[in-house]
Amino acid sequence: MEILDRIKIIIDRFTEKNIRIALAESCTGGYISHMITNISGSSKVFDRGVVSYSNLAKIEILGVNSDDIKEYGAVSKPVAEQMAEKIRLGAKVDIGIGVTGIAGPTGATPEKPLGLVYIGFSTENKTFVDKYIFKTERINFKKLVLGKIIDFLENFIS
Amino acid sequence: MEILDRIKIIIDRFTEKNIRIALAESCTGGYISHMITNISGSSKVFDRGVVSYSNLAKIEILGVNSDDIKEYGAVSKPVAEQMAEKIRLGAKVDIGIGVTGIAGPTGATPEKPLGLVYIGFSTENKTFVDKYIFKTERINFKKLVLGKIIDFLENFIS
Repeated sequence: MEILDRIKIIIDRFTEKNIRIALAESCTGGYISHMITNISGSSKVFDRGVVSYSNLAKIEILGVNSDDIKEYGAVSKPVAEQMAEKIRLGAKVDIGIGVTGIAGPTGATPEKPLGLVYIGFSTENKTFVDKYIFKTERINFKKLVLGKIIDFLENFIS
Repeated sequence: MEILDRIKIIIDRFTEKNIRIALAESCTGGYISHMITNISGSSKVFDRGVVSYSNLAKIEILGVNSDDIKEYGAVSKPVAEQMAEKIRLGAKVDIGIGVTGIAGPTGATPEKPLGLVYIGFSTENKTFVDKYIFKTERINFKKLVLGKIIDFLENFIS
């Protein structure tokens, strides 16, 4: 099934169940919000997104701990976790999702390779982070992250 | 010229001149941020974006005046103006851009037709709002708004 058809089903199901979501994106740069809002009626489900590209935006808008950014780096499990949890709590929604990674082609280090991405998922019951390495070009990288988020949202209602 | 080539030139020129931007998007849902961040190196220029889809997000994250939303509606000149100015001041960047409109197919009223969009531009010297009616389908609507923003950014450095 096409990705927009899958998103439409999620929007319909979430609307029925009154489940609302919010996103904190870094390396995906607004792409996830863009794709969800391509569906008419998504405003009933999608409350807000933050594209916290700079570290300061992560700290100021989301409230990510600046010491954790210093200690673990912006592309890290603790930061993805906080992005997801803090956007959920701030927006008072059911699901918060946070994405931080290295879309490339620059920014990689020996410890943090090109394509590394942490995706945090936060609900009232639990917050967890998945780690992937999507070594591909920038736009496809965003699509692969979207796929993982869509998988999660589909599982949430299945 | 292709839109991504035009954005790349803007990113290069803005990087040279150390001009930074931030976006507050409503109806475009993150598309403008997504397209700008498709360019590698955009992190030097693009500080943050907010996809303030709900009214509460406009009030809470951006600080748009809730009385103005009540009086003029979320899709209005005062709201676009405040979105642009407040994201610029909040992010401490040179240019703030705010977009609010009716992408459709629902949400139109006799006073506010489908495709109506207000784009606010804020710099240190002035803040102004352009009004358009882009009566087209949802994804093309986003592209037309992006075109107007790219025009503005190109003019800013020409």
